[in-house]
Amino acid sequence: MDTPAWPHDHAGACVVSVDVDGEVPLLWRSRNGAPGLAELEQRRFGPRVGLRRLLDVFAERGVTASFYVPGQYAETHPELIVAVAEAGHEVGLHGYLHEPPTALSKDEFAQALVRSTQSLLNAAGVRPTGFRSPSWDMTQDAFDVLGQAGLRYDSSMMGSDRPYWVNDLVEVPVQWTLDDAPFYRYVGGTEPRHPPSRPADLAGRWVEELEAAQRFGTLAVLTVHDWLSGRAAAAAALDEVLRRLETLDLWRATADEVARWHIESEGRPPADGPSNGDGGE
Amino acid sequence: MDTPAWPHDHAGACVVSVDVDGEVPLLWRSRNGAPGLAELEQRRFGPRVGLRRLLDVFAERGVTASFYVPGQYAETHPELIVAVAEAGHEVGLHGYLHEPPTALSKDEFAQALVRSTQSLLNAAGVRPTGFRSPSWDMTQDAFDVLGQAGLRYDSSMMGSDRPYWVNDLVEVPVQWTLDDAPFYRYVGGTEPRHPPSRPADLAGRWVEELEAAQRFGTLAVLTVHDWLSGRAAAAAALDEVLRRLETLDLWRATADEVARWHIESEGRPPADGPSNGDGGE
Amino acid sequence: MDTPAWPHDHAGACVVSVDVDGEVPLLWRSRNGAPGLAELEQRRFGPRVGLRRLLDVFAERGVTASFYVPGQYAETHPELIVAVAEAGHEVGLHGYLHEPPTALSKDEFAQALVRSTQSLLNAAGVRPTGFRSPSWDMTQDAFDVLGQAGLRYDSSMMGSDRPYWVNDLVEVPVQWTLDDAPFYRYVGGTEPRHPPSRPADLAGRWVEELEAAQRFGTLAVLTVHDWLSGRAAAAAALDEVLRRLETLDLWRATADEVARWHIESEGRPPADGPSNGDGGE
Amino acid sequence: MDTPAWPHDHAGACVVSVDVDGEVPLLWRSRNGAPGLAELEQRRFGPRVGLRRLLDVFAERGVTASFYVPGQYAETHPELIVAVAEAGHEVGLHGYLHEPPTALSKDEFAQALVRSTQSLLNAAGVRPTGFRSPSWDMTQDAFDVLGQAGLRYDSSMMGSDRPYWVNDLVEVPVQWTLDDAPFYRYVGGTEPRHPPSRPADLAGRWVEELEAAQRFGTLAVLTVHDWLSGRAAAAAALDEVLRRLETLDLWRATADEVARWHIESEGRPPADGPSNGDGGE
Repeated sequence: MDTPAWPHDHAGACVVSVDVDGEVPLLWRSRNGAPGLAELEQRRFGPRVGLRRLLDVFAERGVTASFYVPGQYAETHPELIVAVAEAGHEVGLHGYLHEPPTALSKDEFAQALVRSTQSLLNAAGVRPTGFRSPSWDMTQDAFDVLGQAGLRYDSSMMGSDRPYWVNDLVEVPVQWTLDDAPFYRYVGGTEPRHPPSRPADLAGRWVEELEAAQRFGTLAVLTVHDWLSGRAAAAAALDEVLRRLETLDLWRATADEVARWHIESEGRPPADGPSNGDGGE
Repeated sequence: MDTPAWPHDHAGACVVSVDVDGEVPLLWRSRNGAPGLAELEQRRFGPRVGLRRLLDVFAERGVTASFYVPGQYAETHPELIVAVAEAGHEVGLHGYLHEPPTALSKDEFAQALVRSTQSLLNAAGVRPTGFRSPSWDMTQDAFDVLGQAGLRYDSSMMGSDRPYWVNDLVEVPVQWTLDDAPFYRYVGGTEPRHPPSRPADLAGRWVEELEAAQRFGTLAVLTVHDWLSGRAAAAAALDEVLRRLETLDLWRATADEVARWHIESEGRPPADGPSNGDGGE
Repeated sequence: MDTPAWPHDHAGACVVSVDVDGEVPLLWRSRNGAPGLAELEQRRFGPRVGLRRLLDVFAERGVTASFYVPGQYAETHPELIVAVAEAGHEVGLHGYLHEPPTALSKDEFAQALVRSTQSLLNAAGVRPTGFRSPSWDMTQDAFDVLGQAGLRYDSSMMGSDRPYWVNDLVEVPVQWTLDDAPFYRYVGGTEPRHPPSRPADLAGRWVEELEAAQRFGTLAVLTVHDWLSGRAAAAAALDEVLRRLETLDLWRATADEVARWHIESEGRPPADGPSNGDGGE
Repeated sequence: MDTPAWPHDHAGACVVSVDVDGEVPLLWRSRNGAPGLAELEQRRFGPRVGLRRLLDVFAERGVTASFYVPGQYAETHPELIVAVAEAGHEVGLHGYLHEPPTALSKDEFAQALVRSTQSLLNAAGVRPTGFRSPSWDMTQDAFDVLGQAGLRYDSSMMGSDRPYWVNDLVEVPVQWTLDDAPFYRYVGGTEPRHPPSRPADLAGRWVEELEAAQRFGTLAVLTVHDWLSGRAAAAAALDEVLRRLETLDLWRATADEVARWHIESEGRPPADGPSNGDGGE
């Protein structure tokens, strides 16, 4: 397979992204009742401690990241979103109350988009250009709404490991293996599942993923969460990954930069986009 | 992030705690029927063998720990609780029959608190100052009862990685990754889940957690169980963790000592405590 | 146990196989509704990127593999199946829409066999000789249909670790530990399970499996999937396994070659085949 | 804790045991229907290949083990049980059709005991002295029946890590972490769980368990299954464990030898046995 070029002749690319969830997903899940205090407090660790710790790690490592923030979070913790924006990071959309697009009608999705866009504008003073689905699932309706709203990109699908077109949006693809949630998420309860992964092991794995991105010329979109990777041992492991990232021949960019580069280098999307089976190659 | 000071200028802090459960959680779960003999015997390993083995390991390593004991356990095995107290460890509350606070009315919780306090007083001769929720979940009612009973601290929530206020109680926060149960708990049955973790792997992870506590200035509250970490290979792994703990710049304290220090250094709790979103930073 | 001879006096044997699933299993599962876009896109990675990456790795390592392709996949992506066949790999049957044999009547199974045979003939120009069950489960009816259709072998059962007879078909046995799906398959949703395994760890394990095949004189049938092992880090790990395979004393063959050798060296099946408990030894 | 003496002044003890299950547990589970062919064949690997491979490994390492055999298995594969007995291994009871004691009335349990005792007598010519519960669960009725049948020991409970009394039977305790099933058992299906553990990792863990048995003076009862640890990579890993076992100061004995030693050194059981909470210390 010929390796497509990346900017500055880099062998591959890497986006560091943060899903700034805190307690918001639990508020959505318990919207018809009362959230359990245990998970609520566990998640509140994010805005209380975790997000600032991630900002510190990024500052030390010189990383500019893409932060996806639910509107309700931005309204509740505006000072945190200001800190994110002032550090030069991208602020992107992540629903209002972390609602999965599959649970919403087209109108409801559109309303949540308008409301959360306004919340981010109010908090960070910047109009977001990209969307990260709260559940990493999407609907065709949701894609339509995003396109009509003039967004540049979505970053929720796994259909390629390079940017590709979904309708007239650039897709900056994510991947479960590059997300901390499948590894770290553990909230107890009566049916506990796998124990949380060891941070040093996840770090070792992510380094291998980044090396593979360099080898195969792909884009690795890392995703961490404030209430998970903001924990001390996880933040130390993430710091180690970012140290190794500095030694690799990867273009370090925000998701928005990747989307803009894709538009510039590829022009307009083909008539039959990858959602019809053509894909990003 | 500025690292807050710890006593004696330590970089971070560590509490070693034991949830002394034995068979009691199974007695609660099967309170309307008969407990299965397999899990019953598996748990009886705690009072028969495991608890004394943990005491031996702590004695060898010079560790003073915080033991949370259900009232029924203290009544059934008073000689064990005497041994814990005589070795200088803290004895704290852990329900009467290991009842989850979320399963109780406010009155029932208050009654279990009175009854288990008396059981610990009878067995160890000391009035407990702290509470560890049997399920690591809480209710607002339960916090109210603990405060009215004059307790100094709770140690069941995960809202920070430093001590913080919940109402007028100090919260000495726990964390799933520092608990042996998500890793070791395996009781068979028709729907077995993940296999028990390898003790040497958990030990390696806990050492990394302690190193991260030193790095980020946090409090690591380790929690082990008599019927889990009292097993031979797990006890050997715990011993290794405690050897490494000796080499780190962490304040080693009981949960009660942490709570008292927090009160002394921080004064009374703020009007809008962390349960309203402010947290421990 | 005497080690039976393998061709060219090799100590053991290894077949590399690919289950070319892409999105087809999801199309089967959602045949009465609409498939979720998240898993659909995740699986489309296979035909868009993953399959060609596997072909590249096999070409670099000089591996001739056995590819099992659902008929619908061959019809949708004929150019990929042409590429597989032109590289000299075996193309085998894998259902039409990845239907589990246990979900079909005997007639339905026979119809799917006829239809998928025709699809592979049309795409690759070769009549397949072997069948890999989409679910790695079988029925007696399905074995009867395969035999009546004149197939040479099945490769879906785990009853031995050498080729053996099931009725008048050679069974080229698979094994869960040699399949990437139990380790890598992770599609999110509300009930996520174990996180995906680390590719370097799976590679290390597979090397040990191959070494054990050499030691005990067995046949190791590796199975990878386009949408799983086609991912960058997994492809790099597979490449490492294939490098180590070159250093071992194992007969590298396609499943069809193993089946033909078994027929030549063992003659016709015994009257009471292994499905009656006799097995492959 | 004072370390109690073991025979020949060994620091600890180790029993190697085999649960010879093959397809029998599936026959029990599907007794009212038809077993699935996939799991059936996967389990048939045990009598076809796995059991003899384990015998080979034990012969190479000079290990005399305790084999627990369902009556139906002994009737179906008498030549295998002859091979076990002729190699000098212990043959013990494991139900007739691998029925869990908790699923049987007292009479049904007694009948299964009589029938399976006769099957083992017929196959191996030796009257078994010990029982291993098929489900590692027991009932008080089942203990009563075993005692009335004159058995010397049971090996199904986890209430200590040294032999102890349950009524008038010696309990030779097992432990989930020393059983291969929680780690290796994986039979596919629609709800797959954790992937099978890597044999080299389980071997490393078991070596640590044996080292801990030496350190703490305990008894480690390893348990493997014909259809699981008889697989090539698992058998190689078991061989490595047994090599390491040779270097440790552990009394290597069969379960029956442990039971006889316990009776000789401890005399008759106390009036209030460990099932009343006293335990094995």
